[in-house]
Amino acid sequence: MPLGDRAGDKSESRYCGVETEFDDDVPQLLISNLSSGGFDFVVAPLMNPSYRPSLVQKENGCSAVLPFAGSDLILSPAQWSSHVVGKISSWIDLDSEDEILRIDSETTLKQEIAWASHLSLQACLLPAPKGTSYANYARCVHQILQGLNNMQLWLRIPLVKVDDDSTDAKSEHLVDSWDLWNSFRLLCEHHSQLSVALDILSTLPSPNSLGRWFGESVRAALISTDCFLTNSRGYPCLSKRHQKLITGFFNHSIQVVLSGKALHNVSRGGTDSPTGLNKSPDGVQSHPLRCYLDYVAFLYQRMDPLPEQERIELGYRDFLQAPLQPLMDNLESQTYETFEKDAVKYIQYQRAIAKALKDRVPDDKASSVTTVLMVVGAGRGPLVRAALQAAEETDRKLKVYAVEKNPNAVVTLNCLVRMEGWEKIVTIISCDMRSWEASEKADILVSELLGSFGDNELSPECLDGAQRFLKEDGISIPSSYTSFLQPITASKLYNDVKAHKDVVHFETAYVVKLHNVARLSPPQPVFTFTHPNKISEGSNERYKKLVFEIPNDTGAAIIHGFGGYFDATLYGDVHLGTEPSTATPNMFSWFAIFFPLRTPICVRPGSSVQVHFWRCCNPNKVWYEWCVTSPSQSPLHNVNGRSYWVGL
Amino acid sequence: MPLGDRAGDKSESRYCGVETEFDDDVPQLLISNLSSGGFDFVVAPLMNPSYRPSLVQKENGCSAVLPFAGSDLILSPAQWSSHVVGKISSWIDLDSEDEILRIDSETTLKQEIAWASHLSLQACLLPAPKGTSYANYARCVHQILQGLNNMQLWLRIPLVKVDDDSTDAKSEHLVDSWDLWNSFRLLCEHHSQLSVALDILSTLPSPNSLGRWFGESVRAALISTDCFLTNSRGYPCLSKRHQKLITGFFNHSIQVVLSGKALHNVSRGGTDSPTGLNKSPDGVQSHPLRCYLDYVAFLYQRMDPLPEQERIELGYRDFLQAPLQPLMDNLESQTYETFEKDAVKYIQYQRAIAKALKDRVPDDKASSVTTVLMVVGAGRGPLVRAALQAAEETDRKLKVYAVEKNPNAVVTLNCLVRMEGWEKIVTIISCDMRSWEASEKADILVSELLGSFGDNELSPECLDGAQRFLKEDGISIPSSYTSFLQPITASKLYNDVKAHKDVVHFETAYVVKLHNVARLSPPQPVFTFTHPNKISEGSNERYKKLVFEIPNDTGAAIIHGFGGYFDATLYGDVHLGTEPSTATPNMFSWFAIFFPLRTPICVRPGSSVQVHFWRCCNPNKVWYEWCVTSPSQSPLHNVNGRSYWVGL
Repeated sequence: MPLGDRAGDKSESRYCGVETEFDDDVPQLLISNLSSGGFDFVVAPLMNPSYRPSLVQKENGCSAVLPFAGSDLILSPAQWSSHVVGKISSWIDLDSEDEILRIDSETTLKQEIAWASHLSLQACLLPAPKGTSYANYARCVHQILQGLNNMQLWLRIPLVKVDDDSTDAKSEHLVDSWDLWNSFRLLCEHHSQLSVALDILSTLPSPNSLGRWFGESVRAALISTDCFLTNSRGYPCLSKRHQKLITGFFNHSIQVVLSGKALHNVSRGGTDSPTGLNKSPDGVQSHPLRCYLDYVAFLYQRMDPLPEQERIELGYRDFLQAPLQPLMDNLESQTYETFEKDAVKYIQYQRAIAKALKDRVPDDKASSVTTVLMVVGAGRGPLVRAALQAAEETDRKLKVYAVEKNPNAVVTLNCLVRMEGWEKIVTIISCDMRSWEASEKADILVSELLGSFGDNELSPECLDGAQRFLKEDGISIPSSYTSFLQPITASKLYNDVKAHKDVVHFETAYVVKLHNVARLSPPQPVFTFTHPNKISEGSNERYKKLVFEIPNDTGAAIIHGFGGYFDATLYGDVHLGTEPSTATPNMFSWFAIFFPLRTPICVRPGSSVQVHFWRCCNPNKVWYEWCVTSPSQSPLHNVNGRSYWVGL
Repeated sequence: MPLGDRAGDKSESRYCGVETEFDDDVPQLLISNLSSGGFDFVVAPLMNPSYRPSLVQKENGCSAVLPFAGSDLILSPAQWSSHVVGKISSWIDLDSEDEILRIDSETTLKQEIAWASHLSLQACLLPAPKGTSYANYARCVHQILQGLNNMQLWLRIPLVKVDDDSTDAKSEHLVDSWDLWNSFRLLCEHHSQLSVALDILSTLPSPNSLGRWFGESVRAALISTDCFLTNSRGYPCLSKRHQKLITGFFNHSIQVVLSGKALHNVSRGGTDSPTGLNKSPDGVQSHPLRCYLDYVAFLYQRMDPLPEQERIELGYRDFLQAPLQPLMDNLESQTYETFEKDAVKYIQYQRAIAKALKDRVPDDKASSVTTVLMVVGAGRGPLVRAALQAAEETDRKLKVYAVEKNPNAVVTLNCLVRMEGWEKIVTIISCDMRSWEASEKADILVSELLGSFGDNELSPECLDGAQRFLKEDGISIPSSYTSFLQPITASKLYNDVKAHKDVVHFETAYVVKLHNVARLSPPQPVFTFTHPNKISEGSNERYKKLVFEIPNDTGAAIIHGFGGYFDATLYGDVHLGTEPSTATPNMFSWFAIFFPLRTPICVRPGSSVQVHFWRCCNPNKVWYEWCVTSPSQSPLHNVNGRSYWVGL
């Protein structure tokens, strides 16, 4: 049964597994571990561990029956697939110097995976590579992946990183197991059915190095009973750092699997469990790992419920979306509907407009001076409403022009003005702001043209066009905005881009709610635009070179691309943005942007990463180009905007 | 006029250029440098060097006329394209911190290239990058390359490598200009129209480091007059190392361009030139660089003429061919014709057969014992002839079975036997050797089933099938063979593979006459097969891990793939093969094989390269898989033979 019922959480991490020994009687194995034990699935060997192909005598050229656990008929197909993860024989060593062992290992691996496929298991756990060389293991797994049904292969990786690896001399000793995983999956071309099962040990590496795993396809965490401490009442518990890690796993849909022998001798079936969660019915012999399971369930249930907004956005996590083309295309009603709900955003706008009104019109002139405010890109009217509320709040007189190029939105806007009785204050202009000839000039120009990367929906070009009708000393809200970038590990996004099998998708920026990612270095500012743009001859082309330092204790890392954000100063000290360190809380209008790299860049421990970004313009379009020049050279991406651009 | 007339050489390197100053009078420039000076082309600036776009005033929004040298009409299109290489303004610096200079540079570069395209020039010389950062320069060049006609861009690179770069600390100083080129072209994605013009200086780097350039697309070598020494008679000459380098350029179709001021004051127009090659008609003021040109011409004319066989194979240099599928497909008559001409190969076979006959039949039994010899894969009969000649030479009695599966070749074979009157000795068997049921067993089995990589045309599988009819103590000729591999830089081959824009071509091995390549480390043995194969249960699958050391003084390098060769022991000490250090001279039946890498691997100075090769078999096909695991990880290539295989 699931670990608990956390509101909104429908992820796999509710289910907890247990690693078992080989048992020919699979139905009994399920009864003792699931029905009685309280686990949701077993990770069980499929093949008798004494089997070696080279020891089997062939009779008349025919193979003997393979010594699998039971037959396919002893469980229903549904039971096999939902309750059993196949554990591949742990003795196999595909890179052994011993030729017979190597070939036996290849044969057994293939036989076991074929059997697991026959049973339609959802996943198999592959043993960790034994030595420092594993090219042949990776090759056989890659071969298998080519012909696999939709089963996942979980490669077991011990969560190890020796922090003192400052010596230059290459040690034969495994210093960072992430390197092992990275090499293995590069050999297997980031195959989407190859993922990680982390073996959690009693000592944990540094938080920075742990962070890398959240950008990887980790499906399971095997927690050995060795990891557990003992609380004052004799029950197992985990260190604060282990607790935090497990919570991180729950938040990333990673399933926990308990493994090892019971090391805590607590009264079975009692009711004095510290968590009060002991699910075992009295009288029945309890599972030896039951107290560990109870503790994991306690950690799960202790988590805060998912916030409402987060629940709505669950489906958008790590899902690539093409950025809007708001200039070329008209938005749909549904899109307006969604964005208008972002109360936090419009409160910030209202605060900014209020401040601007008070700065522009002193209190003593509040009743005599009328401020001309133009909303450029008024959509269905939310900024018009924010402006009017700001006027009311500050007791200033306002005349509003609402300029909107989408004739469909103008219909709604008209309706709104009539419904609210704003006819005397608000004039609707159904026109593109770049071509409108205004009859008077504005004191304040308000717009919401920002994209996930700030200028990427062409706010600079639109506002340059609109500032013709802003007074010499007029105010633009926003008054400036800056884009930000940071290097990230994002296996899932990389795989989704790669699935298109072309260059175009690798040279496109995507709007995406970043979740299963590792942020390798803090974001840095890229391009800034200020309005009104005093140097009217000034171009909106930009070029920025960025150098990111990866903290030394992160270890080696892989960069799949760059996460992008923005921060905008609306007016004075009123800002809004998505840059993580200063992000406006509870604002949901913008996800991040993701710039992929055609070939992931591997970074050695403590290295810096040199990145170049260009914003390019021609009379018809605006686009970005980007490249990495250190530690290694990427090609230039999106040259001449050949793959991705925003139309003017 | 060309440097000379070297038999068989039709390459560009016969033409010598000269770098000139800006001159508005282009026709006069051509007269003084070509007609009078003896050069074949000029490398001349196209734009007045004082031009800066930011200093030009726009009038009524219209641009002024650009200050190009002359107009397009002052030369005929043919003159422009065959006699002028455009020299892009050397002041440009696209990565300057000075924003105005940077933007002026971008503008000027684009204007000059556009002008050169308008003139249909064959090439433009781009100035060397100025600093250690050149991402923006590369980006602009890449942008330009996207829309370029078939003009070449020659990036000027000084031939510099400071050998003492043992310090780990990154120096701001340029230590190895190959790195600069490598980074630049990686940014530009190995674009085939971007190539190198090497600036030769008076000091040369180590031979190993020079070797790298022969795997690159070098189109020109600019030799400064500074490089020249003075001989005892006061004439310019070059050091032995420079001479060798220039000869290397001639052999790789690299054009020499002389540059700089005359530093040798030799009597002009005299007849006492040391080379006797002074082409200047008397009375005319000779070109100041004439004596340097004469010396270069002397070096060119001093070279040996191209051997006949090399001349025939010129068209095959660096030309990718799909390997034969001799088991699945029947060869064409033309193919037999070509291979039968390889006298050296059949002499080796004859020597081997003769030795085997003498070992098998002592002199005293020569007239009483008849040796049964089977030629498996007899084709149109060259091995039958070699066998009969060996028998005649050694005075041994022979009975020959000629087994051939291609019915078309059997027709020719029949004809041959009748023509030569061999009917009593030779029996023709029109059958696949793997299925033939022989009426008697053979003493000697002779075959020529080897491919460029030894076993790649499935000699092991064929001979395993044929050894059923070899006597217990019978002899196979060849008795064994081994394949060899070495890492190479091969820009041209990489580009040709990449042009297909798919993975399949990157996972295919090609037969190719390697020429424009850098061999980075000596070849190492890979797979060995021995016949007869005593372990009849033994599989023909193989796995080999290779570690190549790149010499420290090579510097950094890029690996585009692996060159493959073979060496076969025919019998005793008679071998034949293509492995460069032991290659059989004047044998032309086999070019090398090339295994490409999907992504080129960059190697730091003095690093080693770890490579894995597998030979895999299933009942229908044989294929190779390969990968690199150090210094960085490649994907596994050709998993399951998905892209390239040889059918059984």
